[in-house]
Amino acid sequence: MSTPQNIAFFGLGSMGFAMACTLLEAGHEVYGFDVVETSLERFVAKGGKRAATADIGASLDLAVVVVLNASQSESVLFGEDGIVAKMRAGSCIIACATMPPATARAFSLRCAETGVLYLDAPISGGSVKAASGQLSVMAAGSAAAFDAAQPALDAMAETVFKMGDEAGPGSAMKSVNQLLAGVHIAAMGEALTFGMQQGITAQKIVDVITASAGNSWMFENRAPHVVAGDYSPHSAIDIWLKDLGIVLDVARLEKFSAPLAAAALQQFAAASGSGLGREDDAAVTKVYARNCGLELPGDT
Amino acid sequence: MSTPQNIAFFGLGSMGFAMACTLLEAGHEVYGFDVVETSLERFVAKGGKRAATADIGASLDLAVVVVLNASQSESVLFGEDGIVAKMRAGSCIIACATMPPATARAFSLRCAETGVLYLDAPISGGSVKAASGQLSVMAAGSAAAFDAAQPALDAMAETVFKMGDEAGPGSAMKSVNQLLAGVHIAAMGEALTFGMQQGITAQKIVDVITASAGNSWMFENRAPHVVAGDYSPHSAIDIWLKDLGIVLDVARLEKFSAPLAAAALQQFAAASGSGLGREDDAAVTKVYARNCGLELPGDT
Repeated sequence: MSTPQNIAFFGLGSMGFAMACTLLEAGHEVYGFDVVETSLERFVAKGGKRAATADIGASLDLAVVVVLNASQSESVLFGEDGIVAKMRAGSCIIACATMPPATARAFSLRCAETGVLYLDAPISGGSVKAASGQLSVMAAGSAAAFDAAQPALDAMAETVFKMGDEAGPGSAMKSVNQLLAGVHIAAMGEALTFGMQQGITAQKIVDVITASAGNSWMFENRAPHVVAGDYSPHSAIDIWLKDLGIVLDVARLEKFSAPLAAAALQQFAAASGSGLGREDDAAVTKVYARNCGLELPGDT
Repeated sequence: MSTPQNIAFFGLGSMGFAMACTLLEAGHEVYGFDVVETSLERFVAKGGKRAATADIGASLDLAVVVVLNASQSESVLFGEDGIVAKMRAGSCIIACATMPPATARAFSLRCAETGVLYLDAPISGGSVKAASGQLSVMAAGSAAAFDAAQPALDAMAETVFKMGDEAGPGSAMKSVNQLLAGVHIAAMGEALTFGMQQGITAQKIVDVITASAGNSWMFENRAPHVVAGDYSPHSAIDIWLKDLGIVLDVARLEKFSAPLAAAALQQFAAASGSGLGREDDAAVTKVYARNCGLELPGDT
């Protein structure tokens, strides 16, 4: 086991909380930060610590940032009470939020001004794999950043894909994954309702597709939520407005035509716009069902 | 092993030829039919027989139809030299072409007029699984049709999904699978080129995605064709113009909004329109590459 590290952990949502706990289990000293007081209390009950950034900044080896997006990451890193200005040279940021590659590069350069290392390190795998320390990390950064981050990556990740030696390609790879994942979730909703409207039950469609060439990781994972009529959020509709939004922002800047990502985003926008933003992303299926007058399992 | 059957087999293309050979290997008497004389000669060299429909029709237990579409199926079944009129009551058609469910129902009713059974039996799995008798069949029809078809299904299929007790749901299920498969192939092309334009190599994208939540059966199967720059047709671009065309025809009739299938079809249309119709369906990636000025592996 590696030397215990002093780690600040920003963002104790479903993913972050699970990841921060694997750091505790690995023997690290972890200071939790979250705007939601109950999340913080829950983390302290697990053995986490709470402190002001000013009091612990200089002692930190690492800061892991698992907030929602680039804007929240910027606030945590460089805002009024930002952590980077308080950290010593040679300590390292592990930035896990999904953001445009150019933003990751910019954050890395700002950290470098005071000698703080930066690992562009988006994550994939969901909260179950986060809880067991089996995430995939798509990471890019200097050799020094990888070295500094290693003790935390060992605890949190099963697989670390080394995407490049400076910040950017980690976020780029994440956006490629999110393009596919978002399109596949919407396609799941489209195919399930298309089949149901022709009289096939949702369960039968799941049975056949998961054994056929039409299968995807997302279909296999999300379609059972529709069959069960259970939309408790594992990953919410609004995550895809954000992540497919990033994909299409990057695409527009790069003059890249992405018709499937664009079509998928419209379905998530319709879901969110009709009040489903906080439901599980499988609820995109409800948009299709409404558009063809179909009842789904669980509908009253 | 089942009693040897007399079987007429229509359509000796890459799928049909492989399937017909598994029937020969199982000990059945198989009469091949194809408009391409060389395909027929190749089948005879494997032990297949050739004959006129008039000479063998009355002796047939089964006729398997693996032609391109509904129109070719109709010609084979009910055209000038059609097989159905020559078959005895109680013999059975196994109809494997992808077609609208309503067409399958109509064909079944026309067969019933002379007591010929009809199994609505689209197939999935590709030519490799066809050659090893491991196809998936999405089948619907009467119990009598299933019984009659059993000896042939035993030889050709690993899994037979029973979708219903009259023709239609087999074709409906196939269209659901093709919706997903077609969308996933186009999404593969979109994601690969999106990542490559941001500087990630195609091979690296394949390595990461096949281990991540963005994976699909089609991504894993087709993306390596792009990495290798090999577009030898396993399944051709034009197949998707046809199959996503069926999906969208059915969708329009049923007033079903299918934005992802529609977007995917446009990409296959652009591929076919620019001369790639007979290349492997992974060549849809070339449309994306051309649209963003990207070179793909194998480009000179």
